[in-house]
Amino acid sequence: MNDNSLFGGIEAGGTKFVCMVGSGPKHIESRVRINTTSPGETLKNVIDFFRPYTKEKMVKAIGIGCFGPLDLNPDSKSNGYITSTPKPGWRNTDVAGILRRELKVNITMDTDVNAAALGEFNWGASKGNDPSLYLTIGTGIGGGYINKGKPLMGLLTPEMGHIHVPHDFNLDPFPGSCPFHKDCFEGLASGPAILSRFNVRGETISDDHPFWEIESAYIASALVDYILILSPRIIILGGGIMQRPILFPIIKRKVQEFLNGYVQSPILLENIDTYIVPPGLGNQSGVLGALALAQLIE
Amino acid sequence: MNDNSLFGGIEAGGTKFVCMVGSGPKHIESRVRINTTSPGETLKNVIDFFRPYTKEKMVKAIGIGCFGPLDLNPDSKSNGYITSTPKPGWRNTDVAGILRRELKVNITMDTDVNAAALGEFNWGASKGNDPSLYLTIGTGIGGGYINKGKPLMGLLTPEMGHIHVPHDFNLDPFPGSCPFHKDCFEGLASGPAILSRFNVRGETISDDHPFWEIESAYIASALVDYILILSPRIIILGGGIMQRPILFPIIKRKVQEFLNGYVQSPILLENIDTYIVPPGLGNQSGVLGALALAQLIE
Repeated sequence: MNDNSLFGGIEAGGTKFVCMVGSGPKHIESRVRINTTSPGETLKNVIDFFRPYTKEKMVKAIGIGCFGPLDLNPDSKSNGYITSTPKPGWRNTDVAGILRRELKVNITMDTDVNAAALGEFNWGASKGNDPSLYLTIGTGIGGGYINKGKPLMGLLTPEMGHIHVPHDFNLDPFPGSCPFHKDCFEGLASGPAILSRFNVRGETISDDHPFWEIESAYIASALVDYILILSPRIIILGGGIMQRPILFPIIKRKVQEFLNGYVQSPILLENIDTYIVPPGLGNQSGVLGALALAQLIE
Repeated sequence: MNDNSLFGGIEAGGTKFVCMVGSGPKHIESRVRINTTSPGETLKNVIDFFRPYTKEKMVKAIGIGCFGPLDLNPDSKSNGYITSTPKPGWRNTDVAGILRRELKVNITMDTDVNAAALGEFNWGASKGNDPSLYLTIGTGIGGGYINKGKPLMGLLTPEMGHIHVPHDFNLDPFPGSCPFHKDCFEGLASGPAILSRFNVRGETISDDHPFWEIESAYIASALVDYILILSPRIIILGGGIMQRPILFPIIKRKVQEFLNGYVQSPILLENIDTYIVPPGLGNQSGVLGALALAQLIE
């Protein structure tokens, strides 16, 4: 990458769109936060922000890390669309196409969590660790896996928040909140699952509540499956639930306990504190990751 | 690849070593089956087979798909070794090093299942499908994942046979046979797990035994997690257990049932017969995959 080149990044979320022009965390030319309202109004504000840069061809490409579900199939007619979202007004919105037509610049789109994973890999906590895994545990649960410098894209983008985790109904009688799988990982451990279980938001539950041991076991069980299947060199845990610092040591202990010495790697056996870590870019992983996506365009 | 170049392939198993010289399934120059006895005797026979080709520099490189556990860390002193195997005499055997020193040719080694996955990807049922997954369900359970033309290598090689699958003790009171995790996927569904559960080998249990429904559910649950995490474009099921044809339709039905429409892909929803398939190379996936490994050396 030429360090003088400028790129655009958009973290497109259900609450806000964060837009950035720059080349990385050390060179941010401009940044704006736009509230997510209707697609028309929101995208108009996004276009207004980027227009001065694209008009003069100062920005080479724009990356979008977007909330979903998305159609990212390059052969599909609705490639670049937000598809069946429950968010009012946004269903079947051609986010990438509208921006491409209006700004006449290369646009690339990926999931919000793939963008964040790439941002952390380029400049954050997983820098230099390939393959690496970024997991967000909050309103939803999702994972982005970087292999050979790029987010994994297969038949579709991974949906690793929906895997099965062991669920002991005696310990946790909550049936799960996932409309597709009931008690999958997201159905048991996401923010909405906690709200639906206790009728209060997770933030209001104290550190010494026994539930955090159960929550940590769900997270650790999922991590063990990701480790056995993906063998990442580092795992970043982000998202709202992971803002609670006491969870990290419990999760690490349980990962070691569940693996039971099977994966013979010093970092897992002796240095797990450097293996399961918080994001290095704080709340900037998403927008910087979108900037990094733009830099992947050849 | 130049089609006139010759390569060597070794499928190194606990029962037999299959060695081949050729460039692919349509051009096999020579092939031999060697019984696995002591490392000294077995490797001497392997060397004798390849010597005429390496002496004259007719073979550019040899790939080994090897039983494990293996040390494949390029920075390790014991890279290329079989490490803590229970197989008598084979613990800490420098398979790759011995062959490299004796034959003075480029040697590359990977797990047996990664080699088979690569063989199928180059010439078999998953040809042209990237990423793809090859799973063997037999004496052990293991998976090889091909992404961007190569087997996935992370912190270590994946050990995806050891993930958690739902286990209903009322339906299947067997506690599991994995020495590390008891009732992980391999601990419940491998050949030895069946033997230990019923005191008879799986082959002797009739097609109409209710256990096959349970076995299929374990396999389908694991496949669902692999699909959600790895999003392969095709899944090949090989290994001794999968020689029983009635398992395929039950597994496919259960995969659809467990995913419950969540992954919106036509191949999963309408064409699952082309998504979950048997190997295309029969019992040659391993040795041809070893040949393909040799061709990855640059």
